[in-house]
Formats: sequence, C-alpha cells, structure tokens
Amino acid sequence: LKLTIAFDGRAYAGWQAQACGTAVQDVVERAMSELFGGAHRLHSSSRTDSGVHALGMCAHVDLPSLPAGMEDRKIRLALNARLPEDIRIVEARRVSSFFHARFDAVGKEYHYQIWNHPAMNPLLRNVAWHVPQQLDVKAMREAARFLEGRHDFRSMAANHGYHIKDTVRTLHEVKIVRKAALLTVRISGEGFLYKMCRGIVGTLVQVGRGRFRPSDIRRMLEAKDRRVAGMTAPAHGLTLHRVLYRRGAEAMGRKAPRDRDEHSGTEEAEAE
Amino acid sequence: LKLTIAFDGRAYAGWQAQACGTAVQDVVERAMSELFGGAHRLHSSSRTDSGVHALGMCAHVDLPSLPAGMEDRKIRLALNARLPEDIRIVEARRVSSFFHARFDAVGKEYHYQIWNHPAMNPLLRNVAWHVPQQLDVKAMREAARFLEGRHDFRSMAANHGYHIKDTVRTLHEVKIVRKAALLTVRISGEGFLYKMCRGIVGTLVQVGRGRFRPSDIRRMLEAKDRRVAGMTAPAHGLTLHRVLYRRGAEAMGRKAPRDRDEHSGTEEAEAE
Repeated sequence: LKLTIAFDGRAYAGWQAQACGTAVQDVVERAMSELFGGAHRLHSSSRTDSGVHALGMCAHVDLPSLPAGMEDRKIRLALNARLPEDIRIVEARRVSSFFHARFDAVGKEYHYQIWNHPAMNPLLRNVAWHVPQQLDVKAMREAARFLEGRHDFRSMAANHGYHIKDTVRTLHEVKIVRKAALLTVRISGEGFLYKMCRGIVGTLVQVGRGRFRPSDIRRMLEAKDRRVAGMTAPAHGLTLHRVLYRRGAEAMGRKAPRDRDEHSGTEEAEAE
Repeated sequence: LKLTIAFDGRAYAGWQAQACGTAVQDVVERAMSELFGGAHRLHSSSRTDSGVHALGMCAHVDLPSLPAGMEDRKIRLALNARLPEDIRIVEARRVSSFFHARFDAVGKEYHYQIWNHPAMNPLLRNVAWHVPQQLDVKAMREAARFLEGRHDFRSMAANHGYHIKDTVRTLHEVKIVRKAALLTVRISGEGFLYKMCRGIVGTLVQVGRGRFRPSDIRRMLEAKDRRVAGMTAPAHGLTLHRVLYRRGAEAMGRKAPRDRDEHSGTEEAEAE
C-alpha cells in the first residue's frame, strides 16, 4: 500500500521518532494498527525535520492481505477517521509489492515560504518565515542559478553528528516565485542532505539582504565548509511538496528490481 | 490615525465586542492605551463575524496629538509589540482628521477559500472550508454572474434579530479562481449585509454540487426570503481582504464632508 501523506509539522518532532516528541510516523502506524490489527512498519521516501510540513510525503507499508471489498478510497477514509486533524492521508493506493517509497524515489520538491513585509501575515505565521527587511529578489534569483546542477552541498547542510561520505547532490531547479509579499522558493532535486533546503534558503535570503553577492555562492560550494555559507532558515517555512517516482515503479506485476543494494548506503543522508 | 489591521479570527468573537468572547477591537484599543495612555475608541470600516479573518480591515482613531518624532513606522512597530501574534497592524498612517473609516469606504473585497479535494489540506484547515465532493466550477461561475450588479440580497443574508430596511447592495464582481484543489471566491462590492458573503458562497457550492441550477440564483434573489437560498458557508474560510476608500479621503488638509448624515442609517447593515 502506498500512502501520500500531508501534515502540519508544528506539533511533531519530525517524521521519524526522535529522543523526545511525537513522530508523524508513529501516529500513522498507530492508525494502521487500529484499522488492520497487528503492527505495521511504514517505509517513507525521506524523513522531515522537527517542525517541517508536508503535503506530499510518501510511504509504503507491506500488508499480507487487505480486507476483501475494501477499496483504496475506503482505506483513506478509514485511516483519516483514526488520525488527528493535522495529519491527513491524501491518497492510499495498492501498488506493486516491489514498490519501495525510498529506493524508487527519483526526486523531491520542497517549497519554502517567506513573508516579505514589515508586518507578518497572521494567517501565514505557522507556514512562512517572516523577513521584514526588503529583499533584492533579482539578486536571489541570480544566486539560485549557481545552486542548480550537480554540486557538493556540504557547505549548505548540517553535519548532524554522523559522517556522510557522499555530499554531492543534483538540484534540478531553484526557483523563486513572488506574489505580492509572499516569496516561495521552490527547490527540486534528486536528493537532499540534512537541513540542506533550509541552508540554501537562509543563504539566499542573506543574498537578498546584501550580506552576500550572488557570485559568492560558487565560492561557498567550493569551500565545502558549513561555516562559509549563510544561516539556516527556520523549519516552519518548509514543506515537502511532492516525491517523484521512477516510471512504472508502482505498476502491479512489476518484477523485483536488481539495483536495490547500491541505494542503501544513502539512507542516512536522505533527510531534510 | 488610520490603521490597516490583519488578524486570525479563530480566537476571537469577531471585530466588535459581543456578549461573550474577546473582540479584536478591544485588544487593539488596549494596545493603543498602553502606548499612548488614556482610552481610545477605534472606528472601523465594518464588523466581522466570529471566526472570520482579515488581512485589510481598516479603522481610524482620533488622537489629539502624537508624540513628537514618532513616525508612522514606529507607531506600527510599537503597537505590534503590544499585540498578540494573531493580530498585526499592517500599516499605521496619519490621515486627514476628517477621514472616517466607515463613512469614507466605497467598497470592500472579501476572499473565501475552499479546499476541494477528498482529503483536507492540514496546512489550510483554519483558513479554508473543506468541500470533499467534486464541484462543477463552470456552473458556479455561471451562477456568480447572476449575483453581480445591484440586487436585493435579503435571500442571501442572515436577519440577526434587528430589522434592516434597505437590503439592496451592489456587487462589483464575484470571481472564482481555481488553483489545483484550492478555489477562491473573490467578492467585491459597495457594501455587504450580515453573513451575506457566506450565504453567497454556501449557495454557490450547492450549485457546484448540482443541488441548484445557476439560473436558480435569479429566482432566489427575487424571492427575498433567506429560506429559498443555500446554506451559510462556515466562518473560517472568509477573509476581509481590503477596504477601498474614496479618492482623497485620507488627504491631509481635506475639508469636512457634508454628506455624513445620510450614511449613518446603514450602520447596522454593514457587517459580515
């Protein structure tokens, strides 16, 4: 079963269980147990950090069998009836038993919202970062272009204790959309390091305030040192917008993939 | 002093003091007293109902004098420092002492948000109405055209105990904007009756669900009876977007208007 999940990250310590706080994963697994009985382990496309939101988080769960006559639509309704209002199953769908929410993912898209006005919009205070100073969006867009493509993003990501060998990632697009006072930074890429999106947005905002020049981005990436780049933007502006899967990954009757092992090494790095 | 005010209506019993609950007006007046000393009475463009939000509510307050050297910007910052996070002064501006937030208003624009998807978006659950059934937006747009112009809106508004003589209002535009699952109904007009926007949106949604035909709107307006129209949409989807003022109404050195008396009769009707 493939689940597409949306949640308001405010009340949670991220997707996966941490030392303290409730994890979104635990709450969804509990709803699965209530509905189907037994214990169920969700495998997600990625983790999200404490306070980060999601509209299109994906996860799969292996179920030996589903109750006869229970349509996908009914599973979604039954799960939502067992979940709090701040977590919603957007879609539940039977997919190939070989489908893997993490290993079959080929890309992700994050949206970061910034309210760029002297006074905060009270209706967006939980989903956007308030930046009261005027931002030079043209400079931010110029800087964003240096981030697109294949780079070592060590300078933009948090280290988080454990050692990551491979910090090279490919970003397809870093796009800044302005609609009145609302700036949305859309970042899509193959994979993301821990706190990489927030490091990118924090740095872009500092470009917008004149603290860095757009061309400084190149120097930052080359330095491979977190200290040379800008600040980390707060978690509550970030939303995992969607996860992209390889063609046919969900198709019923799909054969077992042979290339699974080579992916497992990236597990610890795939978190924002 | 003219104030433009944004607030998240969830925690409040509307703009003006009711029998129970906190009114937004009281909270802003208290912040004014803290800042300037003494008691200050805010005169607003309109009232909003319990739970309704605002991004561009306008109000004025008569101040005998402002502290020397206190710029408009500083007044805004000082007031925001004394207000809770769910109420923000978007702008504070010295205007003509003849400016009146209600009598000089020539129009208002409300936005009503609908999340039209089987599962609610948890990030919008406090600012949009969840309509899970598929809506025929084309039929809704056709129905909306019957509402534009000058009509007696008695059938769309709540009676609310007191008697209103004149229920004729002019709507400039009723526009439905669709962006993926998010429908926004933008309603702009000269004036609004109590719960009129929500009556209009509830009726339009019932047109979208096939309960009424678009042409039924004409019959509903002619009936002048609330019972023939559709349901009242919930408060939390509605936002007072902005208030429009007559040209030059705020200009310093403006002369006293002569036509104030004729407006005062509409006071009780100007509430949504």
